[in-house]
Amino acid sequence: MALDVDPNASADPATLDAADPLAPFRRRFVIPDPDLVYLDGNSLGRPPLRSIERVSRVLTEEWAGDLIRGWDRWLAAPRRVGDLLATGLLGAKADEVVICDSTTVSFYRLASAALDARPDRRIIVTDRANFPTDRYVLEGLARDRDRAIAWLDPDPTDGPSVAEVAAVLATHSDDVALVTLSHVNYRSAAIADLPAITALAHEAGALVLWDLSHSAGSIPIGLTEHGVDLAVGCTYKYLNGGPGAPAYLYVRADLQDELRNPIQGWFGQADQFEMGQGFRPTPGIGGWLTGTPGMLGLAAAEEGIRISVEAGIDAIRAKGIALTEYAIALHDARLAPLGFTLGSPRDAARRGAHVSVRRADARELTRAMIAADVIPDFRAPDSIRLGLSPLTTSFRDVARGIAVLADLAGRPEA
Amino acid sequence: MALDVDPNASADPATLDAADPLAPFRRRFVIPDPDLVYLDGNSLGRPPLRSIERVSRVLTEEWAGDLIRGWDRWLAAPRRVGDLLATGLLGAKADEVVICDSTTVSFYRLASAALDARPDRRIIVTDRANFPTDRYVLEGLARDRDRAIAWLDPDPTDGPSVAEVAAVLATHSDDVALVTLSHVNYRSAAIADLPAITALAHEAGALVLWDLSHSAGSIPIGLTEHGVDLAVGCTYKYLNGGPGAPAYLYVRADLQDELRNPIQGWFGQADQFEMGQGFRPTPGIGGWLTGTPGMLGLAAAEEGIRISVEAGIDAIRAKGIALTEYAIALHDARLAPLGFTLGSPRDAARRGAHVSVRRADARELTRAMIAADVIPDFRAPDSIRLGLSPLTTSFRDVARGIAVLADLAGRPEA
Repeated sequence: MALDVDPNASADPATLDAADPLAPFRRRFVIPDPDLVYLDGNSLGRPPLRSIERVSRVLTEEWAGDLIRGWDRWLAAPRRVGDLLATGLLGAKADEVVICDSTTVSFYRLASAALDARPDRRIIVTDRANFPTDRYVLEGLARDRDRAIAWLDPDPTDGPSVAEVAAVLATHSDDVALVTLSHVNYRSAAIADLPAITALAHEAGALVLWDLSHSAGSIPIGLTEHGVDLAVGCTYKYLNGGPGAPAYLYVRADLQDELRNPIQGWFGQADQFEMGQGFRPTPGIGGWLTGTPGMLGLAAAEEGIRISVEAGIDAIRAKGIALTEYAIALHDARLAPLGFTLGSPRDAARRGAHVSVRRADARELTRAMIAADVIPDFRAPDSIRLGLSPLTTSFRDVARGIAVLADLAGRPEA
Repeated sequence: MALDVDPNASADPATLDAADPLAPFRRRFVIPDPDLVYLDGNSLGRPPLRSIERVSRVLTEEWAGDLIRGWDRWLAAPRRVGDLLATGLLGAKADEVVICDSTTVSFYRLASAALDARPDRRIIVTDRANFPTDRYVLEGLARDRDRAIAWLDPDPTDGPSVAEVAAVLATHSDDVALVTLSHVNYRSAAIADLPAITALAHEAGALVLWDLSHSAGSIPIGLTEHGVDLAVGCTYKYLNGGPGAPAYLYVRADLQDELRNPIQGWFGQADQFEMGQGFRPTPGIGGWLTGTPGMLGLAAAEEGIRISVEAGIDAIRAKGIALTEYAIALHDARLAPLGFTLGSPRDAARRGAHVSVRRADARELTRAMIAADVIPDFRAPDSIRLGLSPLTTSFRDVARGIAVLADLAGRPEA
């Protein structure tokens, strides 16, 4: 399944592409400008051809043709797509995941439910390098629910270590309600040790909530295997769901009726269309739906998720490692001599599918790269983030992207 | 602007359609089967032609072509479309409305913020006939924030009266935190007296939150004129935004920084893309955004809203009155003799753009109508709801819909 060519700095990218078993998948995406080097598929993935067709069908056949009768089919979508994602990519079971709302709203709902389930514990554990929306939501919850955040402060090129989590749990023994981290850090790509941290949190009597936004569709996860309680993530990154595509949330089967959804809306109501008095949640994962799901976004998300499921997460992971190994080899050969440092773990087992390279003028360099038709992302204060989306990024993209960056960074005025 | 033909029961529907100044708007929607009588545009409006074109452009040009750079344009959409809706249809000002999330999530956020702003007051006033998701969200908030709901229980063919609201406010003097009602009732179409109830709530020191889902795009609202504090609504009914299109929320300008958004996400953060430590809300309405907005849904919603703005709310209102007057005249002539009663106010000034007719076998009759290519909606326990969407419903639709219903209801087995 993996490449049998070593992706070192002197490898020929065309040879690497020829050896790539996932290369044919690129043709299943809309790529109007093949000369544009897109290294931001971990922020907004490219559109699958089938997503365009599918959304067009929803518009012209289902919305225009079925009208309100479309709900006979649409009602099942949040759970059907959730099942596809759960079983195909998250290592969870059917009836444990639904697609709904934004990641922010889903994160709020699950974090809130976790705090409500541990009313006598005061502490939320997270880290300063966590994705901003998670941190901001937690700050609001801590203020409104009289809790406090114990902040981990990991090395910015890395994620929170098991030892750091163990130390903070020991400091606040019996007082930690929730441990919540990103599985793959949005800037460094460091993979947090989900199995070990989940086990530690459980030993301490806390619930865990993982943000999978940068890991779903890039690395295997194993929610069931590792006994994860709660998780959320977005579908517009590696899952290629489209701009602002809906999020997903996972609640482990045995917690679905034990925890309480703080936003109890009509889509979580048993006998929804009887519209009766008194909220009675649908048992199971259905009770975690809230408002009316947006069907255009959901249809595109389904096709995006499906294409990753078809490729298979092990093949995706193998290519993610090969792409990032290649990028790091090129960094060492071409960028390090220009004053760059690597902002991501060197150990492939501890790294997702993107690579950050750091230099003080990263902001200006990112702008110059975009002007030169190479699109990475800038992440404050000093990182250029190269997103290497296994289904759509070629080795040629990596070679050309880093060549352009090296050229720009090596100019006297840079 | 209004029809100059009297829509009585013996009027010729073709003559009424010929006299309808909004009739040309019907051609701006996708109507694949002109023989299908669609009387549920107040549940899911039909697709405007321009929405199909616009979403296709977002897919193929913006998502596929601009990729992550699309956000340079997309970031402005929730506020731009909010401004269009605010100034064009809600009688609010620019910078008072944003499009985001579902109605349920928006309602939760505003109701929650209102309760937080009145910490010493225990009572929430709403009514038993309010739309289910509003009632369910309030029940959850009351439980979680140690509040109680004072339920109004209006006549099911009507909405809550000013006298009922005055009485409950008098009973709980100085203890009411929030009064929240639907402007137009989803079943009866009764218009609540928004100006009077808002004034009463303010006299009592309470905040008001109006659900405009069935009034926006069907009747004038005047949020600024009447000093409304907070409002939410959906865009998939009269605004023709598409299945599960995003909702909107309104926060009066002077309350935007005084109240606090309980779900503080990265889209409400000042300097969002600096991704810094500590949530600092964007001042004004921007601080009421939360997570990443879904751009496919938002693009369709914009075109749907735009077409209503172009038609003009006064012309829409005039046609809504004419359509419902016609439906009531036909009810009186053809359905009342078959045992139906009217489930909506007779006074056009107190009625939105739909009409409910009631009979014990409404559920079965609705099924039979759909089988006969007439699509109304059933609303428990005994209402057939005829949604008369002024931009797409013809007088011929009304005549044919009620003729089919009368035929079905008059059969011996019915």
